[in-house]
Amino acid sequence: MTGAIQPDLAMAASLFDALGRATRQGRGIVRDSYGEGEQAAHDIVRAAAAGMALEITLDAIGNLFMTLPGKDRSAPRIIVGSHLDSVPQGGNYDGAAGVVAGLCALSGLRRAGVVPDYDLSVMAIRAEESAWFDVAYLGSGGAFGLLDPGCLAIARSDNGVSLEATLRERGFDPQPIRARRRLLDPGGLRAYLELHIEQGPTLVARGLPAAVVSGIRGCKRFRNARCVGEYAHSGAVSRPHRHDAVAATVALLHHMETVWLQHEERGEDLVLTTGELFTDPGMHGPSKVAGETRFVLDIRALSAATMESVAAEARAAAARIADAYRVRFDLGATSDSPPAVLDERLRARLMSLLDHPFQMASGAGHDAAVFAKVGVPSAMIFVRNEHGSHNPDEGMALEDFAVGARALLALLLDFPL
Amino acid sequence: MTGAIQPDLAMAASLFDALGRATRQGRGIVRDSYGEGEQAAHDIVRAAAAGMALEITLDAIGNLFMTLPGKDRSAPRIIVGSHLDSVPQGGNYDGAAGVVAGLCALSGLRRAGVVPDYDLSVMAIRAEESAWFDVAYLGSGGAFGLLDPGCLAIARSDNGVSLEATLRERGFDPQPIRARRRLLDPGGLRAYLELHIEQGPTLVARGLPAAVVSGIRGCKRFRNARCVGEYAHSGAVSRPHRHDAVAATVALLHHMETVWLQHEERGEDLVLTTGELFTDPGMHGPSKVAGETRFVLDIRALSAATMESVAAEARAAAARIADAYRVRFDLGATSDSPPAVLDERLRARLMSLLDHPFQMASGAGHDAAVFAKVGVPSAMIFVRNEHGSHNPDEGMALEDFAVGARALLALLLDFPL
Repeated sequence: MTGAIQPDLAMAASLFDALGRATRQGRGIVRDSYGEGEQAAHDIVRAAAAGMALEITLDAIGNLFMTLPGKDRSAPRIIVGSHLDSVPQGGNYDGAAGVVAGLCALSGLRRAGVVPDYDLSVMAIRAEESAWFDVAYLGSGGAFGLLDPGCLAIARSDNGVSLEATLRERGFDPQPIRARRRLLDPGGLRAYLELHIEQGPTLVARGLPAAVVSGIRGCKRFRNARCVGEYAHSGAVSRPHRHDAVAATVALLHHMETVWLQHEERGEDLVLTTGELFTDPGMHGPSKVAGETRFVLDIRALSAATMESVAAEARAAAARIADAYRVRFDLGATSDSPPAVLDERLRARLMSLLDHPFQMASGAGHDAAVFAKVGVPSAMIFVRNEHGSHNPDEGMALEDFAVGARALLALLLDFPL
Repeated sequence: MTGAIQPDLAMAASLFDALGRATRQGRGIVRDSYGEGEQAAHDIVRAAAAGMALEITLDAIGNLFMTLPGKDRSAPRIIVGSHLDSVPQGGNYDGAAGVVAGLCALSGLRRAGVVPDYDLSVMAIRAEESAWFDVAYLGSGGAFGLLDPGCLAIARSDNGVSLEATLRERGFDPQPIRARRRLLDPGGLRAYLELHIEQGPTLVARGLPAAVVSGIRGCKRFRNARCVGEYAHSGAVSRPHRHDAVAATVALLHHMETVWLQHEERGEDLVLTTGELFTDPGMHGPSKVAGETRFVLDIRALSAATMESVAAEARAAAARIADAYRVRFDLGATSDSPPAVLDERLRARLMSLLDHPFQMASGAGHDAAVFAKVGVPSAMIFVRNEHGSHNPDEGMALEDFAVGARALLALLLDFPL
């Protein structure tokens, strides 16, 4: 295979255009998981795959495989994939860009007459977003038999129809999910590659078209943290006699910010967020010392050890601050999702393929995390995107997409590494 | 007059007992402003005053004066007073202790056969608590023509009956309030003295039975402060790109605590409280950077200049922090009540009358602030009290009350200073 082969960007442009036209409702994109919007997107990419004579198959739960057959059909294959669903009133690129990138890479290979040594499949994954059934990765998790069968009973957030009924309605089979049966054998996969828009502003800020994803952050979250002090008259109780839950919570969160800054200085990946914080509306008052706060502390990092040590530091700091402020912290249990390790060799190769090599962590989850979890060497490319994701204003320029798609195709042409 | 004369503590004990029995409902005391509970308390103290042959008068809005006539009836008199109403489910001492202290001082004088040079009046003030009509100091403010006549339309918080209708129902006259007419001439008052339970834990913590009140803190309150950032994915947006309203608010409140500590170190009276703080429950989420917070910043100090400078510092810090965190603070206007200056000579004299002289600020407001505002030399004595005030567990020991009542009587015997 040679470097002169290029992704089919004209096809990419027309696919983005068709996807947007078919699934826009008002300002935003609606490709409801296992719903009409997602199906419309599947129909569009399937037609494109048929147009270039790819082999088309569907698994029991609706994941769509569009394959350029290789010389050795039994050899482990490469999957290039992403999802085609969107959040309600989402944008045109979150998920779809990865499927389109795979198709326009295979189209480039087809037009160049390349027959790869082994199969190259584009996988249009179902239902990655948790917005509809309150569970993420239904498609990729289901493909590897990883879903809790209880998810079949979950009602779709807008129409109340269960996942099971929804699957049946579309002609799919809930049985493999119920039996936790694998539809895809990780051993049959050489690699999983995913291109995705960046969901944050880093590439825009750095003026870079694309990046290699270093890993997908895990999350360790104190979901129901609480500080309990004592309500008191704000004027009549002096500082040394207060049990001020707000002051103590402020002290804890301020301390955790300094912990974050120390990690930043050492170059250790970490993000800390308190997105919910509130006094009790039934008890608080403008002239009362607050007797209680509730808050979330969301810890994300590429390293499980970092998350563990930051959580331990939060607990230790809470104990110190509780003493100093005469309050009690009850941080509660954490809900944990482990970080996903992306393949080091694939990342290094992708870095060498970028004119401006840059590596960054993904803070949001992706199907790639599921593939990495079952041991498939996985890699991701981020493409610059304006205005974040999960909103109608997602803005990915085709030139930036082209940079990512070229790196993806070059990586495919390079295999085996 | 001589120092051998003592307050009538037996009367005090029996009055506290009678007040508690007449106005307890369940665990707590209910002496509703201009309601049956307050009236029952008025009836009890009036009967006691009648029993010692004090001269009894009532002003148009129900304030009760119980006077030991002096030799010169036209000379400026001294008023010893406090209020007889309570919050719903309050305690037996908040307010009542001051009226009882006045009566047992006059009883001591009566029993000793003392005829003072000028009138000494105990004033049982109406409706000091804002719990019932959402306005504090209705009785004392009304006596000096200071009330906004609009207050007559305010509905009582529990039964919805307007203040005007409530006054008429009790046989009082709302007209002076409507006309902002004075019922009491500040020029005819030599001094106003008020004994009150401490509403905080300072005297308990210091092991002191009583204190001289140095002044009544004013309040400058940012009632509707707001920080506006941008909602974002907690994992995908790194620190330098965030507009995190919680992080910025934490930074501001942490800074204000250091400002408070600096004032404490310099011995400058100040309390700072954020009793309400919350992200938007309709918009926040555990994996979202918070795009908005709302909070209160309550600044109280004995010095108006201190409150002004702390408020200015809050605004300046908010501007700096807004820049650093890429958010916008809208602190809004402050609602202000000025500090009350208590008379320096009276305070010095009271200090000299305590075995363990101690002076402390009052953080809560009192009728004394109204008398001080119209230029009457005013002083206050705090008596140690367990469990704070405005709750059924107010706990004042009679021995501590006796220390305060003796100082009060000694001050009366000392006049003119």
